[in-house]
Amino acid sequence: MADELRVAVAGGAGYMGIELLRLLALHPHVSIRRATSEQNAGKPLSELFPSLRGRVDVRLEELDPKRIAEGVDVVFSALPHGTAAATVVEALKSEVVVVDLSADFRLRDAEEFRRWYGPHPAPELLAEAVYAIPEFAREAIRSARIISAPGCYPTGALLGLVPLARAGLIGNGTIVIDSKSGASGAGRTAKTELLFGEIQESVRAYGVGNHRHQPEIVQGLRGAGGANPVVFTPHILPIRRGILSTIYVPLRHPDGIAEAYARAFAGEPFVQVLGADRYPEVRDVRGTNVAQIGWKVLESKTMAIVVTAIDNLCKGGSGQAVQAMNVRFGFDERAGLELVAAVP
Amino acid sequence: MADELRVAVAGGAGYMGIELLRLLALHPHVSIRRATSEQNAGKPLSELFPSLRGRVDVRLEELDPKRIAEGVDVVFSALPHGTAAATVVEALKSEVVVVDLSADFRLRDAEEFRRWYGPHPAPELLAEAVYAIPEFAREAIRSARIISAPGCYPTGALLGLVPLARAGLIGNGTIVIDSKSGASGAGRTAKTELLFGEIQESVRAYGVGNHRHQPEIVQGLRGAGGANPVVFTPHILPIRRGILSTIYVPLRHPDGIAEAYARAFAGEPFVQVLGADRYPEVRDVRGTNVAQIGWKVLESKTMAIVVTAIDNLCKGGSGQAVQAMNVRFGFDERAGLELVAAVP
Amino acid sequence: MADELRVAVAGGAGYMGIELLRLLALHPHVSIRRATSEQNAGKPLSELFPSLRGRVDVRLEELDPKRIAEGVDVVFSALPHGTAAATVVEALKSEVVVVDLSADFRLRDAEEFRRWYGPHPAPELLAEAVYAIPEFAREAIRSARIISAPGCYPTGALLGLVPLARAGLIGNGTIVIDSKSGASGAGRTAKTELLFGEIQESVRAYGVGNHRHQPEIVQGLRGAGGANPVVFTPHILPIRRGILSTIYVPLRHPDGIAEAYARAFAGEPFVQVLGADRYPEVRDVRGTNVAQIGWKVLESKTMAIVVTAIDNLCKGGSGQAVQAMNVRFGFDERAGLELVAAVP
Amino acid sequence: MADELRVAVAGGAGYMGIELLRLLALHPHVSIRRATSEQNAGKPLSELFPSLRGRVDVRLEELDPKRIAEGVDVVFSALPHGTAAATVVEALKSEVVVVDLSADFRLRDAEEFRRWYGPHPAPELLAEAVYAIPEFAREAIRSARIISAPGCYPTGALLGLVPLARAGLIGNGTIVIDSKSGASGAGRTAKTELLFGEIQESVRAYGVGNHRHQPEIVQGLRGAGGANPVVFTPHILPIRRGILSTIYVPLRHPDGIAEAYARAFAGEPFVQVLGADRYPEVRDVRGTNVAQIGWKVLESKTMAIVVTAIDNLCKGGSGQAVQAMNVRFGFDERAGLELVAAVP
Repeated sequence: MADELRVAVAGGAGYMGIELLRLLALHPHVSIRRATSEQNAGKPLSELFPSLRGRVDVRLEELDPKRIAEGVDVVFSALPHGTAAATVVEALKSEVVVVDLSADFRLRDAEEFRRWYGPHPAPELLAEAVYAIPEFAREAIRSARIISAPGCYPTGALLGLVPLARAGLIGNGTIVIDSKSGASGAGRTAKTELLFGEIQESVRAYGVGNHRHQPEIVQGLRGAGGANPVVFTPHILPIRRGILSTIYVPLRHPDGIAEAYARAFAGEPFVQVLGADRYPEVRDVRGTNVAQIGWKVLESKTMAIVVTAIDNLCKGGSGQAVQAMNVRFGFDERAGLELVAAVP
Repeated sequence: MADELRVAVAGGAGYMGIELLRLLALHPHVSIRRATSEQNAGKPLSELFPSLRGRVDVRLEELDPKRIAEGVDVVFSALPHGTAAATVVEALKSEVVVVDLSADFRLRDAEEFRRWYGPHPAPELLAEAVYAIPEFAREAIRSARIISAPGCYPTGALLGLVPLARAGLIGNGTIVIDSKSGASGAGRTAKTELLFGEIQESVRAYGVGNHRHQPEIVQGLRGAGGANPVVFTPHILPIRRGILSTIYVPLRHPDGIAEAYARAFAGEPFVQVLGADRYPEVRDVRGTNVAQIGWKVLESKTMAIVVTAIDNLCKGGSGQAVQAMNVRFGFDERAGLELVAAVP
Repeated sequence: MADELRVAVAGGAGYMGIELLRLLALHPHVSIRRATSEQNAGKPLSELFPSLRGRVDVRLEELDPKRIAEGVDVVFSALPHGTAAATVVEALKSEVVVVDLSADFRLRDAEEFRRWYGPHPAPELLAEAVYAIPEFAREAIRSARIISAPGCYPTGALLGLVPLARAGLIGNGTIVIDSKSGASGAGRTAKTELLFGEIQESVRAYGVGNHRHQPEIVQGLRGAGGANPVVFTPHILPIRRGILSTIYVPLRHPDGIAEAYARAFAGEPFVQVLGADRYPEVRDVRGTNVAQIGWKVLESKTMAIVVTAIDNLCKGGSGQAVQAMNVRFGFDERAGLELVAAVP
Repeated sequence: MADELRVAVAGGAGYMGIELLRLLALHPHVSIRRATSEQNAGKPLSELFPSLRGRVDVRLEELDPKRIAEGVDVVFSALPHGTAAATVVEALKSEVVVVDLSADFRLRDAEEFRRWYGPHPAPELLAEAVYAIPEFAREAIRSARIISAPGCYPTGALLGLVPLARAGLIGNGTIVIDSKSGASGAGRTAKTELLFGEIQESVRAYGVGNHRHQPEIVQGLRGAGGANPVVFTPHILPIRRGILSTIYVPLRHPDGIAEAYARAFAGEPFVQVLGADRYPEVRDVRGTNVAQIGWKVLESKTMAIVVTAIDNLCKGGSGQAVQAMNVRFGFDERAGLELVAAVP
């Protein structure tokens, strides 16, 4: 365990990148040595993001994959899928741990990856990468070389589903996952459809029955013993951050849900189980690495409605990545993540 | 058909009431003669709602059920459920048509009503009231004495479901309706949970598995021949207006959906069928009486995801009520409802 | 006066263009014959803007300045400044009236124009163009060939200032205009700074002491006899539409303000004077061509704070342009503009 | 200096109270022993505010002024003005430091207080209370018994004005302060005017020329040697948190502004001077105790426009109160306040 971990961030000027830099800036054991951005190379980070004034003192650089790992212990990649893998491959030529926030190392099956994203640039690394929801994969993370930070929607869905699947509570039938996300999930690229005027006072479904996070959810469910068909519909809301997932789960037994969640999350610093007939709100987890979970068993006893809330950029992205780094390097898992949602 | 219809509005200072007054103010054949509000009696309406300056010239009165129908042809009630019925009963002693926006005359079964709202104050009138989605009940409306304006969520759900049920396309299994509503649906009563600071930048589920609009949806589905269990989850969003309903429908046949909607809505002025693989957004119907519908048949062919968008206060409330009034009195159905959403 | 006016819209896919098309679609005497958009040529307008389904039936075309006026009576230009003038020049070769929503014909002085926008492409036309706030320039509009629609901020500022200047009520000293605008004022171009994530839950000043609308405000004030220095600061808010202008006016006399506004706006269909100690809110004019005005005279009697509210895209742009068209062609000035704000 | 400071919070369920509890929960040297709320007495705090789950473990109590100070070192009062003073008087009978977030101890002049709030309940304490903007009153705070946390608007205004006044840069003439605030500034009381539907997509001025924070600003300006008349206009925006103040300052000299701010704020952990021609945005300080300041000197050299941004609940309230507590008890001034704005 290093006393001070030196880190580099590739792709520091997107919403995932800036969230990562916010969290690393607050981390007691981390020193940010390098951050890259193609469009903003040369600018001080704090000029682009005045919220980081006095906190992070680096100048954004152009990405040079061959040098990204120089002089650091950890390379975070917040690059887009497809381009991330090449940087990861280069970084691994040094003695570093890589934490990748793209989709490039999330699916274990190169064929499944190809179907959703195109040919995988480094399929030989897929088996080695650890899909890093720490609550479900803590041991594997401790020795990982490639930590793959899960997608935001899969994190929200799997925190709700995996404990039920592991406990054998899920019955036959389709699982419906209806997720509502803040607009930051779509990234910081200048697109007309993401303008304030297009998002505010509206709500829409997208990627209906066809979203790239679906295979990731299915993979996670299968890993926990769940065999159900999964239908997943994401929606974009006029909020900056947060995902609320409303999950309709066919039940084998109506009892044992509270126990299943208690078993899965006892002592976990970042998962809060609200209990039956209580439902989380996005505002209570906004800006934090916390997930909250509540549920209802319907009168018919044949279905549970599970509701989970996370911050898509934090527990659904950069926060979980930092949490995994903490696990990997033996820090207190809460280091740098001692955040309480600012309510209101 | 009167040349100029004289109307009274009971409960004019809630969000449904003000929307009704906005629409009636623009109606070419309507003269607003009376509007009531307990809390604001004595004030000019345009003082309470400066948006109505120069448009509606009434002073708010205290509600006197015995006199609400005096000198008018139509009484609209935007009173809360429970208290609405008493006013309706009084109004019907005169020769008027009543359009009730509360829940009091929506459920045909007094026993079912009692389960959700308590004992019905006038069960003898339930059989007579017409549940007025004009697209499905135009003939009955033409001679109705009590026009019951459907709930906002049921309107959004039934516009998507009834055509499929009538066409026999729905297979066995649970129908999941996941609805996302603007905050105005919760009304204009001063409650902490409806403050800006509680709603903004958040989203939450409520009434999970247990919302009063569920029996209304079921009643409408049964009336169209659908026998499925229905699970309905409403959510409150930080938008003023609008409901997006994402409806998961088990399919008997994967074909025939476009035809079913075409048959149901051909020539309808207020329902726009976007077609397969296209999804409506709330912003395109905001402030209007328009409903938009799109859908996707999943690859498995066993389920369709139907998405409908309405404005909860307009097509989901006061707009639909005015539309029904137009039908009842033989006006052009679009009179007073020629609205185009202000985008952005 | 034509019975049906045939119009073309150049630049139909920006926020000003879509607002114009919304209003023209509702106009009883207008037929939209042509709309252009470079980026969306070939697409049906209603595909780009589903809110216009069933209302406007044109397909977007590429802009051909030489043919823009073919077969129409009026050409609206919602093109960006600089490129608008060339199209106006071409259009005027036909017998049409041009309504230009850009800045190209707002400033009478070509030198002043150059200072803010660069060399003017057609300075010989500046003298002829009518700066069209109908409440102040109705007569000139009646015979205009070039109607220049004022900027959004100047409209909000001048409606408050001109009546006071004309009445000689303004004393010596600087007039401070502090304006708060919805994000749609910045247009529909895909820029990072206009993304939802950048605007929501924030507010910022821009163009401080240096905004292009300042000379337009000064020109209007000078035209009404006001000689004060003007300081103008615009701010961008997380609302879609609307401008609230808080105007700090040194007073010569503390009396006569109500009379000055009454004189200026008596009988005006679109300007509502709320009176002293009452202040307008953006929501009451949103989506409409209405301006509301209120004010306070400070205890010291030496300053008035005037507050005006308009919708930046409507009274501050396309609505005022349609109002001017109505004046020009002798229609009822309210034709197509019978709108009431949807509150909430 | 205590190793662990025991604190009580009177009025813990309003927006100021919950922000205070959020900050104290993160404070390394504080133990929360008591929190009161009339309406929620008996409830666990984390039930009312699930964001505090696992962070603060108290049950809300009824306020008993006689016992509020029992067993604690510091009493924070987030009670409304008028009722706060009585609790402060009682608390001071014990050996505690009181930090009051109401207006009760902000104005030094009991007569001025009476004019705005009514008769002062404990005028004999006014001289002793320290008006606690730590950047301007650090020494006085170190030995204070009553720390009066300044109002949100005055904090934003005085951080911009005091350095200029102290440096003698302000010329003759009126200072205009135009402030834009998030809705949380109006508190958490259930009022119709604060409902989401009333605030969203709107903006309005209030308390025009007549707001209770004006005398507080004037008092602070006078204390720094500024003699100008002050005009202050607050506005309410559809954002949860944050105040942007646009301040129009007549200049004696156009030079020396940067130096004046540098002198005032060199080494300050919470005030960031952006410099000339740069303007802060609310989002960069949201949820933090940071103030950012930028300005422009107009071409005429006779006026500067100073823009300041703070979070109204944090630097404008509870954060500044905790900062003052840190000063008072000799902690690192940043303890519990190491926050970086979550952008986006």
